[in-house]
Amino acid sequence: MRNRVNAYDVAKLAGVSQSTVSRVLNNYSHVKKSTREKVLVAIKELGFTPDEIARSLASKKTHTIGLIVGDISNPFYAETAHYILREAREYDYDVIIVDTDTDDSNFDRSIQTLIGKRVDGIIIASVRKTNQKVSELIQRDFPLIFYNRKIDDDGQANFVVIDNELGAKMAVNHLIQLNHQRIAYISGPCTYSTFNDRFLGYKSALEENGINYDESLVYQDELSYEKVLEFSLKLMRDQDRPTSFFASTDHIALAVMDAAAQNGFHIPYNISIIGFDDIDIASSPYIGLSTISQQKKKMASLVLKELISIIDNKSDELIQITLEPELLIRKTTGINVQIRSNG
Amino acid sequence: MRNRVNAYDVAKLAGVSQSTVSRVLNNYSHVKKSTREKVLVAIKELGFTPDEIARSLASKKTHTIGLIVGDISNPFYAETAHYILREAREYDYDVIIVDTDTDDSNFDRSIQTLIGKRVDGIIIASVRKTNQKVSELIQRDFPLIFYNRKIDDDGQANFVVIDNELGAKMAVNHLIQLNHQRIAYISGPCTYSTFNDRFLGYKSALEENGINYDESLVYQDELSYEKVLEFSLKLMRDQDRPTSFFASTDHIALAVMDAAAQNGFHIPYNISIIGFDDIDIASSPYIGLSTISQQKKKMASLVLKELISIIDNKSDELIQITLEPELLIRKTTGINVQIRSNG
Repeated sequence: MRNRVNAYDVAKLAGVSQSTVSRVLNNYSHVKKSTREKVLVAIKELGFTPDEIARSLASKKTHTIGLIVGDISNPFYAETAHYILREAREYDYDVIIVDTDTDDSNFDRSIQTLIGKRVDGIIIASVRKTNQKVSELIQRDFPLIFYNRKIDDDGQANFVVIDNELGAKMAVNHLIQLNHQRIAYISGPCTYSTFNDRFLGYKSALEENGINYDESLVYQDELSYEKVLEFSLKLMRDQDRPTSFFASTDHIALAVMDAAAQNGFHIPYNISIIGFDDIDIASSPYIGLSTISQQKKKMASLVLKELISIIDNKSDELIQITLEPELLIRKTTGINVQIRSNG
Repeated sequence: MRNRVNAYDVAKLAGVSQSTVSRVLNNYSHVKKSTREKVLVAIKELGFTPDEIARSLASKKTHTIGLIVGDISNPFYAETAHYILREAREYDYDVIIVDTDTDDSNFDRSIQTLIGKRVDGIIIASVRKTNQKVSELIQRDFPLIFYNRKIDDDGQANFVVIDNELGAKMAVNHLIQLNHQRIAYISGPCTYSTFNDRFLGYKSALEENGINYDESLVYQDELSYEKVLEFSLKLMRDQDRPTSFFASTDHIALAVMDAAAQNGFHIPYNISIIGFDDIDIASSPYIGLSTISQQKKKMASLVLKELISIIDNKSDELIQITLEPELLIRKTTGINVQIRSNG
């Protein structure tokens, strides 16, 4: 990988300021001959041409991208971030990550921070369906792309997402094929596109299979470990308990699995659990979580590549890519063998 | 939480540049009365006083901290980063994370990126034992603190770390008490303080218990999943195989567990495995990884608090905190029941 062209390095090596580098390259007067020499020698030593440095100064690009995630301790964000960072290095870009803790005011502030840091573009992994600051950025053509979640008003937005509704349908249909009828749904709020679309998929799969929607089996709130554990335990201890859970992220499926263990349930004999995302640990033989793959590696690679082509003005077309979800059947889902009253 | 005082917001709301805001607050001449009015109204609307804005302009603080991690897809980094970000919000600081992929040139570039983004201070979670760029920053009193890993020449460095040598000794002693003699050690290279100190702990625990050090049981290289899986499988299939593994991170202990599963080994009956870090998933009932706690929440909280006191010049003293490791016995370690020849 070629190091990026950097006036800072030139200035440092030559022992002058960056503006001196700029003045030398623009052939301004009032630059001492010895200073000019030092700058040109430094450029040569760093393996660049004066033209390259001049272009980089003129472009005002920082070769830095901002990445906004919801919660970096959720492995889906951490793992996709890591892929994005690796790809970015190939393109000679730095990435700075900000974490909003899935909070609106933190989100707005993150946007402001990144703009203040003069990033060339922003990748957004988590945003509510409506956000004023993001809409403003899109309107003024700031290079920006969504992955995972996107805004509702996406007519002018670039994104790489999975078909979340279809993914959820695939998960729920898988449970129904295993003879499950009482299927709990654990999710964050519908103000996020991912949760909204997965909820639609959950409901339509039930409907298409003639299963009544039961609100009491549905959690749509803050995705804290403690809250999900408590809700899941309550459901599992219920007389007419669900025989399966669809957790709308793998990270939270792990909390449902912990609830099952605390309740003395064997997975999948007593309870089936399916997640969404396919985080690394899901494929561990000890977890073996059935899930829906978001194709995170492909998603990360595409989103970075497309953002850079937007930054470089290589394309005027909108980037709107919807990837196919994939059902991964592992060991947390099995045939429903519970004998229940049909009351 | 009170929003931070921000000349940018004032400028935006007033429809002027930030330097105009500055000129108004410094009572420079050549500012139109109507412009002055607009700025003062904007400050009031945002709920600040002109003095607060003036102070923030004078201090030149960006209220932004940089956080350098080795690999954000390693849950230890992701989870501590998340804690640091939460704490930072309490102190009204933004945090930008950079990931070096545990690579030296990426590390140096990360430092350069963060300095270029004018961060007020830097938290370093991963660094080699010697690093020229970091030593330079320390020499010029740039606010900087290490956690997890630190440099060797730490006489002038601030850090919050665990006693890694002691932690490793505790892990290995635990295995020895369970009658294990052939204990494999899986680690990254000793050019990192954590791995160096854990290796010392591993060796000294063996020595104190009269067990010969066997180089063939030791892996000290790049911590990729594939490489560790391959090495572990090779060892497990050996005639004179180890009966236990000490993995120097939990993240990599999961790869060793996968190797055990691939080899048809029951944990802990056929093989015992202990990790280091106590990442969240380690306490899952399905993983139940015995490990050494780094007290990550306390570590993250301390490191952020101390860095901010350094930035605020509240203390001239060096911050050098070594936390106590804690042995957490879960279900991946058990009595060695292998019958082996004593050859």
